[in-house]
Amino acid sequence: MEIKQKAAANLLALKEKRPLVHHITNYVTVNDCANIVLAIGGSPVMADDLREVEEMVGLASALVLNIGTLNSRTVESMLAAGKQAKILGIPVILDPVGVGATNLRTRTAHDLIQEVQPEVIRGNMSEIKLLAGREVAIKGVDSAADEQDGVAIAKQLASAWNCVIAITGKTDIVSDGQNVCLLDNGHPILADVTGTGCMTTSLIGAYCGANRDCFTAAIAGIVSMGLAGEMAYASLRADEGIGTFRARLFDKIYRLSPEALAQGGKITCV
Amino acid sequence: MEIKQKAAANLLALKEKRPLVHHITNYVTVNDCANIVLAIGGSPVMADDLREVEEMVGLASALVLNIGTLNSRTVESMLAAGKQAKILGIPVILDPVGVGATNLRTRTAHDLIQEVQPEVIRGNMSEIKLLAGREVAIKGVDSAADEQDGVAIAKQLASAWNCVIAITGKTDIVSDGQNVCLLDNGHPILADVTGTGCMTTSLIGAYCGANRDCFTAAIAGIVSMGLAGEMAYASLRADEGIGTFRARLFDKIYRLSPEALAQGGKITCV
Amino acid sequence: MEIKQKAAANLLALKEKRPLVHHITNYVTVNDCANIVLAIGGSPVMADDLREVEEMVGLASALVLNIGTLNSRTVESMLAAGKQAKILGIPVILDPVGVGATNLRTRTAHDLIQEVQPEVIRGNMSEIKLLAGREVAIKGVDSAADEQDGVAIAKQLASAWNCVIAITGKTDIVSDGQNVCLLDNGHPILADVTGTGCMTTSLIGAYCGANRDCFTAAIAGIVSMGLAGEMAYASLRADEGIGTFRARLFDKIYRLSPEALAQGGKITCV
Repeated sequence: MEIKQKAAANLLALKEKRPLVHHITNYVTVNDCANIVLAIGGSPVMADDLREVEEMVGLASALVLNIGTLNSRTVESMLAAGKQAKILGIPVILDPVGVGATNLRTRTAHDLIQEVQPEVIRGNMSEIKLLAGREVAIKGVDSAADEQDGVAIAKQLASAWNCVIAITGKTDIVSDGQNVCLLDNGHPILADVTGTGCMTTSLIGAYCGANRDCFTAAIAGIVSMGLAGEMAYASLRADEGIGTFRARLFDKIYRLSPEALAQGGKITCV
Repeated sequence: MEIKQKAAANLLALKEKRPLVHHITNYVTVNDCANIVLAIGGSPVMADDLREVEEMVGLASALVLNIGTLNSRTVESMLAAGKQAKILGIPVILDPVGVGATNLRTRTAHDLIQEVQPEVIRGNMSEIKLLAGREVAIKGVDSAADEQDGVAIAKQLASAWNCVIAITGKTDIVSDGQNVCLLDNGHPILADVTGTGCMTTSLIGAYCGANRDCFTAAIAGIVSMGLAGEMAYASLRADEGIGTFRARLFDKIYRLSPEALAQGGKITCV
Repeated sequence: MEIKQKAAANLLALKEKRPLVHHITNYVTVNDCANIVLAIGGSPVMADDLREVEEMVGLASALVLNIGTLNSRTVESMLAAGKQAKILGIPVILDPVGVGATNLRTRTAHDLIQEVQPEVIRGNMSEIKLLAGREVAIKGVDSAADEQDGVAIAKQLASAWNCVIAITGKTDIVSDGQNVCLLDNGHPILADVTGTGCMTTSLIGAYCGANRDCFTAAIAGIVSMGLAGEMAYASLRADEGIGTFRARLFDKIYRLSPEALAQGGKITCV
């Protein structure tokens, strides 16, 4: 089956299974992550206390770890939930938000990668380069780096860490170490709304929760957000901006059909 | 006075008094809770540090305790604020989000019920059944249980705990132990947006804060959300979904008049 | 250059420089603050753990401290980040949300003012009066006090604390101790949406980050929010309310041009 058909089948499975996606995530975009999981057809739950995360992950079909607003309490909870997910065979999706901006983020991301071994890591080019030990000019949480050697880095890290690496940007790059797909959906306005990266990670979580093929899930999640962004932007009038765009983004994810995903996805695999 | 007229009078009182509603709540839907209280005509305040919750609740007309994202720090604050509210005669509204999903939630909900004795407890069928000690299939925070014996459970718990029990679902059930009302407003799309349960609890808080008749307040809060949901859904075009729906939900609560509440409410009391 | 031209030039500089604005803020309106900074053309980052705030502020062009939902952990982080910002010459903008409502808020606000010496303090009339040691009737976080002696208080505090004082309300008052400007943009509906005060503070942060003239930045930030509020309100249909208004508010900030700011600003300097 071609990758687009696989992604469409994954969306169908998602809507049938309504996977519970457990998040330990930042308080900036947490509401957006919950609503995007609902919009695509999944069921979100957020719980971050050490005394409940292992139980909660046991009810879930996927675990999303997002380091956007870390603190000592949540770092500990992420490690505990992540380890329990691995024991139970539940896929873990890591979003290393702002890694490289501070030592705490860099150290935590590496700790999670080593101790939890996530199935998917999704970040922008700066974040993934940083994880790979490359030099990058970090400015907060926005990517500034170019995408030249993204494919090589994605393959190398995916192979080294036995996971799927997803680099989102103008062209998105997804690799499982052997295969690499380039994705060309999306619109620059997506970068003008907070949380579109976090939401993409949550979508990947929902797709992984429905279907353990995390390579397809990463592609399906990124293409879903890209397509919804294109459609939401196309619907804007000249006097509308990110407020209306953001509402429409949820509308478009809510209305996204497996057929639209298969037809609209701009996917090139190499 | 008929219950619908009472609910309408409660809304009028709310808009005149602008009750301050103190929330100790989860970080997922906290912004929605603040905006829904403003939309209906109340004034929200969020404060959860142990060093300030007792002072803050002293300024408030109602206290909403929502266990959606608990941690040790906030559990302690909820207990302290709740006890202070009881001393001051300020109504407490409890939302036992996801009770039964983890031991921490179940234990905390029971601690709050015993030590604080809330005036109103609002949850979905699974959550309320769980509180009643029944067997339920829990899947995260979404209700999976049927509504067969909801009326009996609502009456029994309300009587045992001397409070109002509100079970929201397709048909909502509200009881104060003697009276039971069934409410039939709403639309299934409300379940596709995160926080509509939490917001309903906050609306009940605003109504309770304006008028200490918490039975009427619970009905008024639930019917307000249901009516607004119906109107917001009716306004959607075919290509719109939960993003636009959510914006319209706040619009409709903002524009809800006592007359519309009295006319549109589908309330059957037994 | 006239103040309106200065504000317009500040907006132009902001859009060119994309200043990173580090926030330690409340979890109620944090998403709104992030999106408003993006909408105006800046880059937001939120980080509140003591182990990373000093590093993060070193990457930023401005630091916003907002005490809306304090706790012991974040108070410590605000002090550390604020002191580091001063060492590095990065402007600090303080939003003393709800000061006076509880001793914790009052004490924290005064600690931050003394130990950090912010460049700008923005609050409503009650909050600023409270900081000045005046008697005010506090009701949660909403201003109840009149604006009679606002100008005198603004000048006095700005002079005493060597900062810019911005009092927002029907007429906004901004003073650096010598100059005072009165601003008359805005619409009452802005008070019906949570976070419009916090967002104004974040806008001031973005303007300060682009241009160290914090007096102009405070005026530009407040006028931007006021103008956007007027335009968003004017676009509403009769059946629309705060949900749609809120989306449009982001649209209007996103589309705000330096020319519109210069032309629409109602600024009287004395």
